Amino acid sequence: VITEVTLKLYPLPEAVSAATCSFPSIEAAVRTTIQLIQMGVPIARVELIDQNSVRMVNAHSKLGLREEPMLLMEFHGTPASVKEQAETVQAIADEFGGQAFEWAMTPEERTRLWAARHNAYFAAVQSRPGCRAISTDTCVPISRLADCLLTSVTEADASGIPYFLVGHVGDGNFHFGYLIDPNDPQERAKAEALNQQLVERALSMEGTCSGEHGIGLHKMDFLLAEAGAPAVDMMRTIKRALDPHNIMNPGKIFLM
Amino acid sequence: VITEVTLKLYPLPEAVSAATCSFPSIEAAVRTTIQLIQMGVPIARVELIDQNSVRMVNAHSKLGLREEPMLLMEFHGTPASVKEQAETVQAIADEFGGQAFEWAMTPEERTRLWAARHNAYFAAVQSRPGCRAISTDTCVPISRLADCLLTSVTEADASGIPYFLVGHVGDGNFHFGYLIDPNDPQERAKAEALNQQLVERALSMEGTCSGEHGIGLHKMDFLLAEAGAPAVDMMRTIKRALDPHNIMNPGKIFLM
Repeated sequence: VITEVTLKLYPLPEAVSAATCSFPSIEAAVRTTIQLIQMGVPIARVELIDQNSVRMVNAHSKLGLREEPMLLMEFHGTPASVKEQAETVQAIADEFGGQAFEWAMTPEERTRLWAARHNAYFAAVQSRPGCRAISTDTCVPISRLADCLLTSVTEADASGIPYFLVGHVGDGNFHFGYLIDPNDPQERAKAEALNQQLVERALSMEGTCSGEHGIGLHKMDFLLAEAGAPAVDMMRTIKRALDPHNIMNPGKIFLM
Repeated sequence: VITEVTLKLYPLPEAVSAATCSFPSIEAAVRTTIQLIQMGVPIARVELIDQNSVRMVNAHSKLGLREEPMLLMEFHGTPASVKEQAETVQAIADEFGGQAFEWAMTPEERTRLWAARHNAYFAAVQSRPGCRAISTDTCVPISRLADCLLTSVTEADASGIPYFLVGHVGDGNFHFGYLIDPNDPQERAKAEALNQQLVERALSMEGTCSGEHGIGLHKMDFLLAEAGAPAVDMMRTIKRALDPHNIMNPGKIFLM
């Protein structure tokens, strides 16, 4: 129940640039991101898409991109600083085998560069007619991100379930989308098992079961594993204090 | 009771610059700040000190500054971008009658430029031997900051109580320090009345009684005026849920 919202408005940046770059491996793309963040480059957005996503958006939107993992980035600042940031990124990407680096400043060109990310979900769902995407939402400290992604990719590949991977890699948050046949209970069980393993891995790396999508119904058990029973009891106590009749979104997060 | 803290580490910026500028009035300094923020200049720190503060630090630290309101700023980024930001600031300050603009990149020079801000509190307390500073902590939306400051300065000047004013003007948060004789109940009453008027003014401008110092004991009544009795009841309910025996900082914020 939201009764009042106060928004803080930020001005539009004076200049915005976008850049994309392909990498020989997910690890190379993640290492590039870590290096950028450690150098203090004030990157506004940095997204990873895996080679499956690129293959799917190429088929869906005829983009003709290299079928390799790809970083998509955005920089905000003054005209000189966004140019400087893009140059720094290119120099770092070169060290990790980055290819096909492109950058742009006009809105039209930026939209073109970002098309692969914007179309990824729809392209994935359409790559397997009738499928349903089961999404994960783990997040780990960025220092563990490459490890976490690589093991999880190996597991997903071994499962035989088609999938795609997109990541808000600057935050350590990423989403696998397992593309299952909703009428096949075995596929659903496999996808749930992959998610279970992924969450356990993220928690063992001091991560979280939910980077941004929330707990809802699906992650109630994961929250217990992550926060521990005393912390969940405390959350429940606060919920009860504010909502003694349990009329706000009942049955979610806690089974009261 | 803090049992665990997780810190997010930010890298040191590649380059840091500092700048100071004097203004013919508090209003001119605040209008400059608003213009900077509206232009999206990614300013890292911006502090205002009034002419009383400058007079006190000149006496205390022999700084020889123009006895006018002053902005002290810091910029983070790449070498080219911090230079560019300082130039933008100078151009905007010029429009508002800014004088004696200085900027610097080395740590030693930056420390020298910021000395007036760092010494302001001690210089103020020493300007009236034996005095005690009663600090305010209001915060208003930045669009109302000039109005709020100017009326409050006029009131403080009329009271006859010596005072100084420092502001984190980028946030709309500022502190008057009323320098009272602790043995003179009349002076204390005058300072409390000034604070009361200031808080009422801030609340009428959709501001808050506490920008950063918290509620504690001194602002319990202000919190009630600001948030309303139902909201304070809800805060109390959460406090009771988490601390049923009232052992955590009892008697603060709420009289349980």
